[in-house]
Amino acid sequence: MARVRPIYDLQMLGTAVFAATGVLAVNRRGLDVFGGVVLGTVTSLGGGTIRDLIIGAPVFWLLDTNYVLVAIVAALVAFFASRRIRSTYILLLYLDALGAALFGIQATEKVLGLQHGSVIAVSMGVLTSIGGGLIRDVLAGRPTLLMSREIYATPILFGCVLYTVLRNTALDRATTLIVAVAVIFCIRAAAIRWHVEMPGWLTSRDDPG
Amino acid sequence: MARVRPIYDLQMLGTAVFAATGVLAVNRRGLDVFGGVVLGTVTSLGGGTIRDLIIGAPVFWLLDTNYVLVAIVAALVAFFASRRIRSTYILLLYLDALGAALFGIQATEKVLGLQHGSVIAVSMGVLTSIGGGLIRDVLAGRPTLLMSREIYATPILFGCVLYTVLRNTALDRATTLIVAVAVIFCIRAAAIRWHVEMPGWLTSRDDPG
Amino acid sequence: MARVRPIYDLQMLGTAVFAATGVLAVNRRGLDVFGGVVLGTVTSLGGGTIRDLIIGAPVFWLLDTNYVLVAIVAALVAFFASRRIRSTYILLLYLDALGAALFGIQATEKVLGLQHGSVIAVSMGVLTSIGGGLIRDVLAGRPTLLMSREIYATPILFGCVLYTVLRNTALDRATTLIVAVAVIFCIRAAAIRWHVEMPGWLTSRDDPG
Repeated sequence: MARVRPIYDLQMLGTAVFAATGVLAVNRRGLDVFGGVVLGTVTSLGGGTIRDLIIGAPVFWLLDTNYVLVAIVAALVAFFASRRIRSTYILLLYLDALGAALFGIQATEKVLGLQHGSVIAVSMGVLTSIGGGLIRDVLAGRPTLLMSREIYATPILFGCVLYTVLRNTALDRATTLIVAVAVIFCIRAAAIRWHVEMPGWLTSRDDPG
Repeated sequence: MARVRPIYDLQMLGTAVFAATGVLAVNRRGLDVFGGVVLGTVTSLGGGTIRDLIIGAPVFWLLDTNYVLVAIVAALVAFFASRRIRSTYILLLYLDALGAALFGIQATEKVLGLQHGSVIAVSMGVLTSIGGGLIRDVLAGRPTLLMSREIYATPILFGCVLYTVLRNTALDRATTLIVAVAVIFCIRAAAIRWHVEMPGWLTSRDDPG
Repeated sequence: MARVRPIYDLQMLGTAVFAATGVLAVNRRGLDVFGGVVLGTVTSLGGGTIRDLIIGAPVFWLLDTNYVLVAIVAALVAFFASRRIRSTYILLLYLDALGAALFGIQATEKVLGLQHGSVIAVSMGVLTSIGGGLIRDVLAGRPTLLMSREIYATPILFGCVLYTVLRNTALDRATTLIVAVAVIFCIRAAAIRWHVEMPGWLTSRDDPG
């Protein structure tokens, strides 16, 4: 079994968190449970799916259906428990930041491992992190985070570049991964904590004309 | 020739109907004939295209260009005859329900035949049925059916699950297919006939705030 | 080295121009530099990416990262120089018309060279030309050109058909390419020059109800 257990568990946690926050982000709009599960699952699996299509790898959730099941269950739970969850929404925001960091760095590593260059690897890292949320927002008719000033994607970009640089140093792989994930998470968490910019994907829209 | 004739004909009928309803759904917005044909064709071929990309199969309309031609011609006819067609729109709605059922079940069978598991097969069945309409709505700036309460996707989901279950019983393949398609069609037709929920993709929007 | 130098240079020019006009089209909406670069790059590389996914070819910018770098740099320049560029916007419009013509014809040639039929080749030519702009508009929450009456895609369609026809005549390949590109460019330039229809993707929206 080639999977490293703690990383695999973290990936599943990230998958569940992305699906749950995906549902909560659109849940006020009066969609039904089917729409909720589709949007949650798309948020969770969409970015990695586009990455795999572009780099020509088999789509990851075809090889391990656990990703699909975890996303569906998490979306269902978030859909039906949304009132209770909303009070712990701030916790989910931080978990989402951790998930985004993990998704980005692991995608960067995956693409570098396939002998692609740094530009491709960093692009795919960012795409994997934000792609699912972009598709969800488009399908839900919400403004995407690209049109907001939220500090969401920029730390991911920074962390993926950092990872690519550190990977060529004497640091061992695990330390490199932890450092890059921690940097992304801390910047994002600071943006959440001190409202460095209004988190536009949560508020209705900050789409200045 | 491996194709079964009546199934092939039904697929072409489904392709034509999807293209025609795709055009009619957006035709009031003042788009030109080029936009109409693109949106009709995308409605018709989009879902199966995404399915084939994800499962790594050659895109079906590259192998049989008839799908493209039928979609283009049907979109053109719908575009220019839209006033006359509108009076028979209710007929097209039922044909659309039949097309959606056929597309979903045949995609489920295709993916099961490639040795994927039930979760993947059912997901791809639903995606093939609704994917084209989702892309059309996004390109046309309409709210997608995911944001409505229309009873459209849920019977497809139910039918694809049913097909996957029945396929493992003693029932022969043809009967299984007919039963699953009939179940989807009847639920959807009932929803149309008795307005179980407003068909939101036809009315302007039922996007409760 | 199989690349023909002047064609390669023109492709890079087209890539840069598409990225720049992509940024300028959305720049008034108050997005940040990250969003601007993503939208510019998507405009530039998106159409060809979908084409390559559909025909099962390796995505072109994985094989030659210069496309990505040129797009990112052009998007950055356009983002920061947008006030100065805006006064030369009309020049960019014509360059965009040239880029669209080049992208369309070269995609048609690429797909014909892979032994696909004319219908597929022309479809992929048009898709390569307009696909990136469609994705940008969807991500930016703007009405797509499909919903406008602008004369943008129709000349591309016409030029790709013309190229496919002329390619079977005695004309040599270079002449065929130049004729088709020139025809697309001239029709589009005339539409820009004499406002044959309001260029809707520049104005806010001409989305008649």
